[in-house]
Amino acid sequence: MIEIEGGSVTSPRGYRAAGVTCGIKPSGSRDLSLTVSDRPAAGAAVYTTNRVQGAPIPVCREHLADGRARAVIINSGVANVCNGDRGRADAVRMCEATAQRLGLSTRDVLVCSTGLIGVPLPMERIEEGIPRVVAGLSGEGGVEAAEAMMTTDTVAKHAAVRVDLDGHPATVGAVAKGAAMISPNMATMLALITTDAAVPAVRLQQLLVRAVGRSFNCCTVDGDMSTSDTVIALANGAAMGGVGGSRGLSEEAFERLAEAMEHVCRRMARAIAADGEGASKLITVRVLRGRSEAEARAVGLAVANSSLVKTAVFGNDPNWGRILCAVGYAGADLDPAAVAVSLCGRPVYGGGAGIDFDAAALSAAMKSEEVDIEIDLKAGEARAEIFTCDLTCEYVRLNAEYTT
Amino acid sequence: MIEIEGGSVTSPRGYRAAGVTCGIKPSGSRDLSLTVSDRPAAGAAVYTTNRVQGAPIPVCREHLADGRARAVIINSGVANVCNGDRGRADAVRMCEATAQRLGLSTRDVLVCSTGLIGVPLPMERIEEGIPRVVAGLSGEGGVEAAEAMMTTDTVAKHAAVRVDLDGHPATVGAVAKGAAMISPNMATMLALITTDAAVPAVRLQQLLVRAVGRSFNCCTVDGDMSTSDTVIALANGAAMGGVGGSRGLSEEAFERLAEAMEHVCRRMARAIAADGEGASKLITVRVLRGRSEAEARAVGLAVANSSLVKTAVFGNDPNWGRILCAVGYAGADLDPAAVAVSLCGRPVYGGGAGIDFDAAALSAAMKSEEVDIEIDLKAGEARAEIFTCDLTCEYVRLNAEYTT
Repeated sequence: MIEIEGGSVTSPRGYRAAGVTCGIKPSGSRDLSLTVSDRPAAGAAVYTTNRVQGAPIPVCREHLADGRARAVIINSGVANVCNGDRGRADAVRMCEATAQRLGLSTRDVLVCSTGLIGVPLPMERIEEGIPRVVAGLSGEGGVEAAEAMMTTDTVAKHAAVRVDLDGHPATVGAVAKGAAMISPNMATMLALITTDAAVPAVRLQQLLVRAVGRSFNCCTVDGDMSTSDTVIALANGAAMGGVGGSRGLSEEAFERLAEAMEHVCRRMARAIAADGEGASKLITVRVLRGRSEAEARAVGLAVANSSLVKTAVFGNDPNWGRILCAVGYAGADLDPAAVAVSLCGRPVYGGGAGIDFDAAALSAAMKSEEVDIEIDLKAGEARAEIFTCDLTCEYVRLNAEYTT
Repeated sequence: MIEIEGGSVTSPRGYRAAGVTCGIKPSGSRDLSLTVSDRPAAGAAVYTTNRVQGAPIPVCREHLADGRARAVIINSGVANVCNGDRGRADAVRMCEATAQRLGLSTRDVLVCSTGLIGVPLPMERIEEGIPRVVAGLSGEGGVEAAEAMMTTDTVAKHAAVRVDLDGHPATVGAVAKGAAMISPNMATMLALITTDAAVPAVRLQQLLVRAVGRSFNCCTVDGDMSTSDTVIALANGAAMGGVGGSRGLSEEAFERLAEAMEHVCRRMARAIAADGEGASKLITVRVLRGRSEAEARAVGLAVANSSLVKTAVFGNDPNWGRILCAVGYAGADLDPAAVAVSLCGRPVYGGGAGIDFDAAALSAAMKSEEVDIEIDLKAGEARAEIFTCDLTCEYVRLNAEYTT
């Protein structure tokens, strides 16, 4: 697997993208994003499990019922949530207008929205922007498309890798946004994965679910799961001469593709956590030797969601007691005397008690943009890696500020 | 039910208490607390479900195996967690030393500790203090006993109510501590309930579990459940002439007693939330018409634990979108179009969309020490009331500060 520097959704063959300003966001930054496959593609998606769902989500579900998609239109600035029938009609209209300009059927277009809740989409601006974003499509447009998805992210998030599948070089690319928010926007995590590998829709869904489980579902800024989180994957077979190919991929190739998808998704999840609102540090919580992946994840998420751990990291406090406490309430059936905890590579707890360490030196080591916490459960062979960020005064400030 | 002003664990008949300084806490404030029943009593307890548990907890479980207890010795400053065999021996020794001074058997004494994790108890100071706290026992000592439990609480927490049980006036009293913490202390929630009603141990346990479920388990400051949370109840029958009484209480009397216990526990839970570290406001999340109490609690806790909701309250931001988002990820199978949300008594969301309201007026109403959020699920008859506090810069500051 080789990382492609500056890679994105347009790195795989047969994809074009663009991002334009259509005036949804008062800042004037890009707010309309489009990614298109030049040939039919298999499509898959994973959505938020929040019972309150943005209008785009049921539309995506319907359009992906046949496992095919060719374009994804995304706007930022307004999330199209809690807009009733009008919201649904607007989501459909976005697909329709995009399809018309591309000469596709409406069912081949997927839609996502991120931003304010409870405000309707400014459809006249979106309809004015769609012809322009179609006209702007290019094979280098992936980064622009990533920028147009941003709400209060401070950096565009994109990546791509090249991998060999049964002798064919194939590419997996991704763009994502999420985790930075200001009042009153709602954080939404969106990601789009593209590949030129040939993958049947059912397999693509399986690969996506697995990749999401080990990336976006292992990423938490403040524990809130929004109304609109969506991850979409498209596979157009351009690396192999057609969707489905002549024989289909070998199991070994599927495994390599799975790893490639997981890799780009984890790159995106890590970038989202590092860009968390007010964050000064990326925190990686590694859990080793759990009895199951689910248990390892639960332990990691408990530590990553703990306000006490996150503030301690912010304050460069090597407080293993708070980490251990979070491990203890994760719900895993573990033996506290077996658990070992390391902080920035230094053992701090094990054998049921604290381990002597140079607190001043460890505190100094924590004054880094990346802090690692490692928890060895010594109970099995499963692992998990969770990304989060510290909890800072800036987070509170950003999320408490309100102007009428 | 009548509230007793300034009531505490010494309000019921037959209880004495005291709190002294023995030098565990550097501040010199009281740090050794004792409550004693002058006659045998039924005992019950509920403990943290954290897999990492303080040494006192298994000792309490063993001593309560027979459903009887007569004294509770509590120290603050050191939690006696992660001290291995020495921690256990120290917890037993605290019970033993107290029993010897009171002329009781060690098994009749329960122990709790709160404070630093990973530091052993300074037993010489505790053993020096025990005779003094025994000597200080009085029928007015409940508030002192509450003070001696405090770690970084800013106020002592205590309450009592009088209730009629089958023609006998009986009293239920409580003391509690919790939810304020500074680095590197661990928050511990402790509470002790005393009553002069006659209740068999098995019934007392049932009443306690129910009361805790509707109070302390409906109270969250930052979502972390400590290693040492414990709630103990004693019932000595002094209002009825002996443990178990001649006939036992009627079902109607048990129900009244249950309500009285729930009332004082909720008073304590509310006080703990209001005293949350850095808190400027108490937030009460009322959930109505859930399909079950468990569902109503889950929805309330999701809202109460949401950093986005808590920072919005801090910032006087009438952001119903964040409240609705938290309701949506609580895991309850609800219909977003049926849900209604009110903030400080004003409807802000219903029928699937926001409801017009005067944002400036509502923001002004939120500038209060108490903010109410009400969520009507319109799905059943169950309710829950959750207490929490806002998330402020002061919380971050308190929990991030670290000195070697």
